[in-house]
Amino acid sequence: MSNGILRVIPLGGLGEVGRNLMVYEYDNEILVVDAGLMFPENDMLGIDYIIPDMTYLAQNHTKVKGIVITHGHEDHIGAIHHLLDQVNAPIYATPLTRGLLEVKLGRNGHGSKADLRTVQAGETVQIGPFQVEFYHVCHSIPDGVGLGILTPAGLIVHSGDYKFDHTPVDGKSTDYAKLAEFSKRGVLALLADSTNAERPGWTPSEKTIDAAFDQVFSEAKGRIIIASFASLISRMQQAANAALRHGRKIAFVGASMLDNMKMARKLGYLNFPDDLVIPVDQILSLPPHQVTIMCTGSQGEPTSILGRLSLGTNRLFDIQKGDTVVLSSHPIPGNEENVYRVVNRLIARGASVIYEAIAPVHVSGHASQEEMKLLLQLTRPKYFVPIHGELRHLVQHARLAREVGIPAENIQVIQNGMVLEFENGEMRLSDEQVPVSHVFVDSAGVGDVDPELMREREALSRDGVVMVHLTMSKEFNAVVYDPEIVTRGFLLPRDANELFAEMRRKIIQSASRANGNVRRVVEETVREYLYSETRRRPMVYVTVSRSL
Amino acid sequence: MSNGILRVIPLGGLGEVGRNLMVYEYDNEILVVDAGLMFPENDMLGIDYIIPDMTYLAQNHTKVKGIVITHGHEDHIGAIHHLLDQVNAPIYATPLTRGLLEVKLGRNGHGSKADLRTVQAGETVQIGPFQVEFYHVCHSIPDGVGLGILTPAGLIVHSGDYKFDHTPVDGKSTDYAKLAEFSKRGVLALLADSTNAERPGWTPSEKTIDAAFDQVFSEAKGRIIIASFASLISRMQQAANAALRHGRKIAFVGASMLDNMKMARKLGYLNFPDDLVIPVDQILSLPPHQVTIMCTGSQGEPTSILGRLSLGTNRLFDIQKGDTVVLSSHPIPGNEENVYRVVNRLIARGASVIYEAIAPVHVSGHASQEEMKLLLQLTRPKYFVPIHGELRHLVQHARLAREVGIPAENIQVIQNGMVLEFENGEMRLSDEQVPVSHVFVDSAGVGDVDPELMREREALSRDGVVMVHLTMSKEFNAVVYDPEIVTRGFLLPRDANELFAEMRRKIIQSASRANGNVRRVVEETVREYLYSETRRRPMVYVTVSRSL
Repeated sequence: MSNGILRVIPLGGLGEVGRNLMVYEYDNEILVVDAGLMFPENDMLGIDYIIPDMTYLAQNHTKVKGIVITHGHEDHIGAIHHLLDQVNAPIYATPLTRGLLEVKLGRNGHGSKADLRTVQAGETVQIGPFQVEFYHVCHSIPDGVGLGILTPAGLIVHSGDYKFDHTPVDGKSTDYAKLAEFSKRGVLALLADSTNAERPGWTPSEKTIDAAFDQVFSEAKGRIIIASFASLISRMQQAANAALRHGRKIAFVGASMLDNMKMARKLGYLNFPDDLVIPVDQILSLPPHQVTIMCTGSQGEPTSILGRLSLGTNRLFDIQKGDTVVLSSHPIPGNEENVYRVVNRLIARGASVIYEAIAPVHVSGHASQEEMKLLLQLTRPKYFVPIHGELRHLVQHARLAREVGIPAENIQVIQNGMVLEFENGEMRLSDEQVPVSHVFVDSAGVGDVDPELMREREALSRDGVVMVHLTMSKEFNAVVYDPEIVTRGFLLPRDANELFAEMRRKIIQSASRANGNVRRVVEETVREYLYSETRRRPMVYVTVSRSL
Repeated sequence: MSNGILRVIPLGGLGEVGRNLMVYEYDNEILVVDAGLMFPENDMLGIDYIIPDMTYLAQNHTKVKGIVITHGHEDHIGAIHHLLDQVNAPIYATPLTRGLLEVKLGRNGHGSKADLRTVQAGETVQIGPFQVEFYHVCHSIPDGVGLGILTPAGLIVHSGDYKFDHTPVDGKSTDYAKLAEFSKRGVLALLADSTNAERPGWTPSEKTIDAAFDQVFSEAKGRIIIASFASLISRMQQAANAALRHGRKIAFVGASMLDNMKMARKLGYLNFPDDLVIPVDQILSLPPHQVTIMCTGSQGEPTSILGRLSLGTNRLFDIQKGDTVVLSSHPIPGNEENVYRVVNRLIARGASVIYEAIAPVHVSGHASQEEMKLLLQLTRPKYFVPIHGELRHLVQHARLAREVGIPAENIQVIQNGMVLEFENGEMRLSDEQVPVSHVFVDSAGVGDVDPELMREREALSRDGVVMVHLTMSKEFNAVVYDPEIVTRGFLLPRDANELFAEMRRKIIQSASRANGNVRRVVEETVREYLYSETRRRPMVYVTVSRSL
């Protein structure tokens, strides 16, 4: 062990769910783990997604020696092209994760820029001073890895997203032997996923979905439509297996789902007979009891295939009476309303809808409390740092660690931008704070959204806008013509005519009395008057022209 | 049984959660059951609440003979003053419900208008042709009732909100005997609450909260702050009991909670020793281990006491290290984000936060699947109509009814505005459809919001507004001065200067070429140009003045 300092700096994912990005820094060399995006919350209006603040990496871009991606979900790879705008370093990933990165980078015009390097679970790669051992973990996507990061300051275990699934779809369980080996070698610190820290017990195996699918397939008389995420590769395999067992064909619909399916099949992560999968236009001419269609839209997105089916605006086919629709997913927090709106609309169109609340057609990909305790027991770290989660998840995970015997003073709950230091086998929290604002991304490639813009949008959405056009005399301080008033999104009171009459009077009066900036004086007058009358604060915009 | 027709018309609450209002009509006489509000969904921007469409009642206001309110929650009483604006009829309610109605009507200036009549569970009241028997039900508020409505067409059982709690806080269980008696007399139709139709098993008793509170109280070393709904009267009793058992005092904070507490105490629905409850300013001077504070804000409302505590903007006191905060409630669908945001902020301020996901500090007030089956078995109705719930809940409840033996053809899933008719002991669905639009209420008393306004607000919130002011020559079709461009909430691309330069050029060109309405031509030009460059559709507003 050297005398240098290992710095651990989360730029995203700690204090929130999503946009995971962790910085490991030793002796002026940096390793980045993951580069994810986060989906916006309901009051982040008109935003497509949120990425980590990369200021620190931009300032230290020459230090970055490598980027390691643990698996191919959006909250771990979704900001990769934004990261490559700032740093130039090789990206290490397992074959399926690499395939998903290639699809994503290709779409964002970064295909040629990236230096992608394939690693296999079980391999070790030296990246600057970091000796990174990749070990297999179960998750809701194949080819996920956790990391043993041997640094001169000690051995860090970084869990990635994981669960201990004893009967995973691809037959590969989490690498218990490697975790036990780490513990033998002595783990300085464990950094582990906290997403499900509030869930008691053990997350059910992916295998339990097979039984649920079998029940759905044996009861359905018409077509079966299964909606899920485009990146839930194992779920595609399970749907195809169920179709095969029940004498149906399957078609995959939606560009991202088709792309991922083809790539995963080519790489050998999806296996089905050639004649099982047929194009959607062919499957639609089969009798309903032979049809399975897998598509996107399980989060209730109105523009997805399932969203359009629920609205009756899908191009290729419509919901018909007798269809069974399966939502094989869990609503991302904040999406509940959209998801259940789609469920209700599909029911109204005559479909029988099966979803998580009424049948076990989805399981989580994240460890529950007993699995978290197992990981702590297997690795027996000196220090524990919960990662991936809102503050409530991190705190709950810290409680679990205390329960299994980690001393409270050896557990550190940190959030984005805080800096943990390891030196001479000891952990301490630095006073340093690295910038970690929300970076909002609005329609890819157009630009970044600042918080001021968000506030404007929120104000507009709540109270609308009132626009006033005023013509004043060129020579005298007097309003000529009646002021023109236009409103959008502003709630008119029942006595709107009286309100406008009085407002015009006040506008004319204040404009005539203004010594100087007529526009600002009138805007202030209108604002005050509308607030006093309606308790609302619409955005007010006044234009003045001079005439006569 | 006469030959007349009984019509059953839901104006709210069927196809949604909230704004319950049911119309029973026989021989030109109408009975209204409940008049509730619904909280807005996330994309209903700037809306306070939603009430039932009362067009049908306004058109038939002379037929309305009475209004029955089953219990005092907002989704059953929140629209009562809007109903009284349309109809003039006596309101029947049990004492606590009447107390809550009086508080509500008083606040909305309808106190003197209302003809309130107290009934007790067990009593029968004749309202027009309807003989209404009130029977006690357990719910999360005392004094709730279900209704046996004997009409000339047959006996209808209307469940209201209910659960079968064997150990309710007030000791009064749901009236099994009355339900069994109804079944002996023969129930033509059961209309029953579907809120929890997706939940297997049996809803835990309110009593289980006592044990959870005891654990919280015995572990807490500092102050205990319990947040809940202002109308959860039983929860107030439970918090006070726990304070008493653990040698603490309790203060109630927040106007509505204080009003309801005083009223319920006066009526005998809350019982505690006089020296247990003390004002908040006094309790703050006690040592922390003697303090319990009960307040509102369990739904994450930013302006509530708990919301302000989480933001550090509460006037009377702040969160301090060592405080234990209990959220004794379940997030209303759509509020999850706000609730968890408050939880995270309270943790960040040093509080230990206990909430439903990590401890049983809340139970539902609604029946789960096994209770729903029990109600069906107890009443043995000929026909079954699920009420109170989104379509998915109603359909799931219908499935349960089929499981317990009600023939599918005797079950009718209806939604708001549909008309069910009962004649000669038979049920049929009428072709008639009564108006049931969403009636949006924006800041009490100001006015109603129409869907067009909602669309404007949504557009503004998504893409913002672009305002252009143009000065043109009085004599020539030519733009003088550079066009002025102001944006709000509109995302500027990185090359905004170029965009604006090109936009100015296009504005000048199109204005000069316009034959006629310059404003409209320029607006169209700007819209098209911005969409082609940014794929966004901001609201565009152009003003033109003539000069020189």
